[in-house]
Amino acid sequence: MKYKIDNLQYCNWNRDVFKINKEAKLDAVHVTIAYHEDYDELQKVIKKWEKHFKENQDLIFLGKDYKDIEKAQLENKTAIFFGFQNCSPIEDDINLIEKVHEQGCRFMQLTYNNQSLLATGCYEKNDSGVTNFGREAIKEMNKVGIVIDMSHSGEKSTFDAIDISQKPIAITHANPSFWHSAKRNKSSELLRALSENGGMLGLSLYPHHLKDGTNCSIQSFCEMVYKTAELMGVKNIGIGSDLCLNQPNSVVEWMRNGTWAKTKNFGEGSKTKSGFPKQPEWFLDARGFKNLEENLKKVGFNENEIDGILGNNWFNFYKGIN
Amino acid sequence: MKYKIDNLQYCNWNRDVFKINKEAKLDAVHVTIAYHEDYDELQKVIKKWEKHFKENQDLIFLGKDYKDIEKAQLENKTAIFFGFQNCSPIEDDINLIEKVHEQGCRFMQLTYNNQSLLATGCYEKNDSGVTNFGREAIKEMNKVGIVIDMSHSGEKSTFDAIDISQKPIAITHANPSFWHSAKRNKSSELLRALSENGGMLGLSLYPHHLKDGTNCSIQSFCEMVYKTAELMGVKNIGIGSDLCLNQPNSVVEWMRNGTWAKTKNFGEGSKTKSGFPKQPEWFLDARGFKNLEENLKKVGFNENEIDGILGNNWFNFYKGIN
Repeated sequence: MKYKIDNLQYCNWNRDVFKINKEAKLDAVHVTIAYHEDYDELQKVIKKWEKHFKENQDLIFLGKDYKDIEKAQLENKTAIFFGFQNCSPIEDDINLIEKVHEQGCRFMQLTYNNQSLLATGCYEKNDSGVTNFGREAIKEMNKVGIVIDMSHSGEKSTFDAIDISQKPIAITHANPSFWHSAKRNKSSELLRALSENGGMLGLSLYPHHLKDGTNCSIQSFCEMVYKTAELMGVKNIGIGSDLCLNQPNSVVEWMRNGTWAKTKNFGEGSKTKSGFPKQPEWFLDARGFKNLEENLKKVGFNENEIDGILGNNWFNFYKGIN
Repeated sequence: MKYKIDNLQYCNWNRDVFKINKEAKLDAVHVTIAYHEDYDELQKVIKKWEKHFKENQDLIFLGKDYKDIEKAQLENKTAIFFGFQNCSPIEDDINLIEKVHEQGCRFMQLTYNNQSLLATGCYEKNDSGVTNFGREAIKEMNKVGIVIDMSHSGEKSTFDAIDISQKPIAITHANPSFWHSAKRNKSSELLRALSENGGMLGLSLYPHHLKDGTNCSIQSFCEMVYKTAELMGVKNIGIGSDLCLNQPNSVVEWMRNGTWAKTKNFGEGSKTKSGFPKQPEWFLDARGFKNLEENLKKVGFNENEIDGILGNNWFNFYKGIN
């Protein structure tokens, strides 16, 4: 088996993007369908996806479990797995976890940058860890089969989630801070705890998470992957590119600000560089997987290991979700 | 002037309760209209109140500011001031603060027992203080004229709120923990900081906040009021009875559990005593204000001070809200 999986994209979806992903030979993509949406707003997003699935059934379909990744490869399509970057769709209701799972949700971040009802985001001053509701939600997510994703969470909250969850959790899109110390990147101690508990790290190609940003070299990236494999084990890493193809800058503004502030927050950007950053040339879109394949070889990975990093590790992780 | 104000009730409202409050000579009552309700659900509660106002216009009307307390006394009615025990009605939207103010909201707790988007509740293990959204919300509440109420919040969050708010804040219903160390009661250090910043404490008559619960003696209660006045100053205390007249036990269950857990939480109660506790005989309802008046005299307060505690202090506080 040889599967290719990008375990985080938030593109401005259209047929061209689905084509690019297929050209990149992606058998599965975990797509973000909620940042700040509540349950009713989520229903509107899902309706849009139903339209995408109908109009592009030769390219994509809704993935429910790992068997759909096998099916996608057989049928030369891409299985789309739904995920939330925030817990806003479940509002304050534990019963909505089962409902969103029925609608296809397979990954949910406990928080997006700020404090949520479940845990603390990485942009808060203090992190009080997983909350009372958070503990209940993790239990329920374990039960129905939604992966706990802590990409945008604070460190204590993430340690808590690893500890509380009965199933391995994921950080679908972030990099190690030993390589580039961004607020969103993760400490070695945390990454070790993640992998010791069977968890996965999806390495990000979003410039704010990369050393030297847009100018990051592929060699530097691949060397980082090698060191991360030494730290976490080569079977606990994959790709979560965080690609945001075709998104207008108004979207990154909304991602950062939602409706919680009257003043503007720039998140990982700054006042003068507030928009989406430019992708590095070697990863303009998912077709960059090919460049990764070549360059991971150069830093010393064998073929089997590269297959793992570019998809098989995520595939194996998906086997344990339900 | 001599106003009587109960600054927290959550009764199962009907004409009899309004009559009792008027019999108790209450010129104003701050009533809770939301615990877990979101904005849409709040609209339904407000519709019910519109019906109450229409059907009982000889007894009550919606209070907007301190002048309505004067008006209530002149017209022999009770002014009803709306408040929330949680921030759920503003959801994740800073713009809803102005909207709920327009609809009459004058007090809002940043959190009810658990973690909210704004701050940490007193039932959480760790308290990370006021959040990013919380800081923005406090600014907006100061601007539009909604009092920050920290009755059910954690200690650090409350210190933060005192510090961040440009206007005095309130703890509308709680007692000092030096008298009875319940989770919901407050430390002397915190109460001192509250009053040093012009804030008010509404003393609670809810049995779980009382020394010896239902069997608490009025003498013990009034002695506690005296010590609290020594600690905070006699002008920074009032009454926030937390009366829940006529409420069925299903309501206290809903207050504690909302929809956030599949297991049952008993809050201040216990498995064997899960319902509403019985009120002490000397404060079965607001007519108990008369008993307080008599017994506050016995512990050494003068008439002016008693008038302050039973209403005038809240009246003066209301003057500064807008």
